[in-house]
Amino acid sequence: MNDRPAPARADRSTRVLIHTIAPDGLRSRSDEIVVEEPLAIHVACAGDSALLAVTMRTPGNDLELAAGFAYSDGVVRSPDDLEHATTCDDVTGDARGNAVMLHLGRDAYRRARDRARRLPVSSACGLCGDDILRSLADQGIEPLDDDLRITPEQIVALPERMRAAQRVFAETGGLHAAALFDATGTLIALREDVGRHNAVDKIVGMMLLARRLPARGTMLMVSGRAGYEIVQKAIVARIPVVAAVSAPSSLAVATARAFGLTLCGFVRPPRANVYAGEQRVIVPATRSG
Amino acid sequence: MNDRPAPARADRSTRVLIHTIAPDGLRSRSDEIVVEEPLAIHVACAGDSALLAVTMRTPGNDLELAAGFAYSDGVVRSPDDLEHATTCDDVTGDARGNAVMLHLGRDAYRRARDRARRLPVSSACGLCGDDILRSLADQGIEPLDDDLRITPEQIVALPERMRAAQRVFAETGGLHAAALFDATGTLIALREDVGRHNAVDKIVGMMLLARRLPARGTMLMVSGRAGYEIVQKAIVARIPVVAAVSAPSSLAVATARAFGLTLCGFVRPPRANVYAGEQRVIVPATRSG
Repeated sequence: MNDRPAPARADRSTRVLIHTIAPDGLRSRSDEIVVEEPLAIHVACAGDSALLAVTMRTPGNDLELAAGFAYSDGVVRSPDDLEHATTCDDVTGDARGNAVMLHLGRDAYRRARDRARRLPVSSACGLCGDDILRSLADQGIEPLDDDLRITPEQIVALPERMRAAQRVFAETGGLHAAALFDATGTLIALREDVGRHNAVDKIVGMMLLARRLPARGTMLMVSGRAGYEIVQKAIVARIPVVAAVSAPSSLAVATARAFGLTLCGFVRPPRANVYAGEQRVIVPATRSG
Repeated sequence: MNDRPAPARADRSTRVLIHTIAPDGLRSRSDEIVVEEPLAIHVACAGDSALLAVTMRTPGNDLELAAGFAYSDGVVRSPDDLEHATTCDDVTGDARGNAVMLHLGRDAYRRARDRARRLPVSSACGLCGDDILRSLADQGIEPLDDDLRITPEQIVALPERMRAAQRVFAETGGLHAAALFDATGTLIALREDVGRHNAVDKIVGMMLLARRLPARGTMLMVSGRAGYEIVQKAIVARIPVVAAVSAPSSLAVATARAFGLTLCGFVRPPRANVYAGEQRVIVPATRSG
C-alpha cells in the first residue's frame, strides 16, 4: 500500500503577512506557515465518556493521531480495544474538526480513565486556537507592554552569539539550546537540553530563582522551531522578544500577536522574518525601502 | 551577569560503542551521545508532598528546570510562591540526582495538587533510566525478535525516500516527518506534524486502524532527533528498525538495546551510525573491512 498524506494542504499550512529583515531593510510579504491547533481526544464506552488528552498538532490524519496516541500510551493494546474512531460532529465554529472520539472496549476505557490527563484548558468538547488564547488570558496573563526596541542587526546577531556560548552541542549534535540576552545583546544565560521546552524552562527557572522575573527588556533565542509552548513560556515570563532558527507555527504567531510578543523566525544572517510585534524593530530611516 | 552552564560535561554526554556505516563497510568506534534521564519534580508544603511531574531531560540546572516548569505551568506565579528548591538527598543509586523538591507556599501547593500529572511510571521518590525500562517491561512489552535483515544501502536510502514523499515540508520548513517502509524499502505511509511525536503517533495509529499491528518487518524513518519517546513508540508498535536524521539520546540507545531495536542515527548518505541492534545490518563479506 503506497499511502500518501491527504491532500488537504489548505488545512496544514496558512498564509500570513510578515516582515522580512534583509540587508536593504524591512519589507512586508506574504509567507506560508504550518498550522498548529489543539486536538481534543475523547474516549467513550457504554454511554460514558471522558477527555483523554489535548495535544497540539498539525491537522490531518487526526483519527490516526488519536488512535496512535492511545496505542503508544498503552490505553489501546489490540485492534479489538478500539471499536471505532470518529470526528466529533457536534463541535461547531473554529473548533470544528479539532475533537475526535475513540470508542473503546471496557478494559481499554478503564485504562483511559486511569490515565486521563489534567488539562490546561477547560472545554466541553472541542476547542480551537482562540480557546487556548482565552485560557491564557483567564490565567491573568496580560499583553506585553515592554518598550524594548531592537535593530535588525541585533536580531540577526543572536544565533552566532548563542553558538559561541555553546560547547556540548558541537560534540553531540543532540542538544537544543535556549539563550537569554539583555537589551544590549549581552548573554544573560545559555541552557541546553535534549528537549527544547526544557531548555526554555531552565532559562525561566534561572530567572525565577534569581528573582529576576518578570524578564523585561530581554530577548530569547531558541534553536529549532518556535511552536506554541515556546511562545507561551516567554509570555508568562514577560520576555518581549523570541527569535528562532527555524519556523514558527500558526498558533505561535497568533499567540505572539494577541499578547504583543515580537516573534522572529528563520533567523539566519543576514536575514530573518518577523512574524509578530514588528513595532519593536527599529529600521533606520536611511535604509527603509 | 554572564552566566555559563555548569561545566559538568560528564553528566550531559556519555560515550558509547557504536557501528558506523561508511562506503567501505561497517566499523566500530566510540561516540559521544547526549544524556537523557528522567527528572521527578516533587512539591512540598507544611509536611505534605506530592509528585508534580516527571520529565525527560538532560541533567544540569535541574532546580532551574523544575522551577521554570512550575512557573510556565502557572503553579508558581511569583518568587514568593517558591520558598526554596532542593535536590532530594534521600535518593540513592542510579536515580541519585534525578529528583528535586520544590517547597511551595500554600496557594502554589494547592495549584500543584490540582495539576499533578498522572505518571507513566511509579516511583517512591527518584527514578532512573532503568526504572523507565522496567516500567515498559511491566506493561508486558517484550524484546523484539523480528528477523528482518537490512543492508547499509537500504538504511542510507531512507532519508531521500522520505523527502521524495514530502511536499508540505519544502513550503513551510516547519514540519516534522515520520515515514514507515516495508522490508524492501517501499513506502507504506508518510505523516507530517509540527510535533515529531505526533507524526509517529499518526503512523502507529494508521497501522492500528488498518489492523496491521504489530508492524513486523518495517522500518521507521524520522526527521530530527531520536529521543526516548520515539524509540518507545516504535517498540510498542513492534517496529524493529528506527532511523533518524540526527542524534539519538542515551536513554533512546539504552531502550533500543534493552528491547532489541535497531537504532540508526545521523543517517546522512553515504554514512549512518548504528547505535543498537546492529545484528540486523547485513554487511556483504567482500566489503567488510
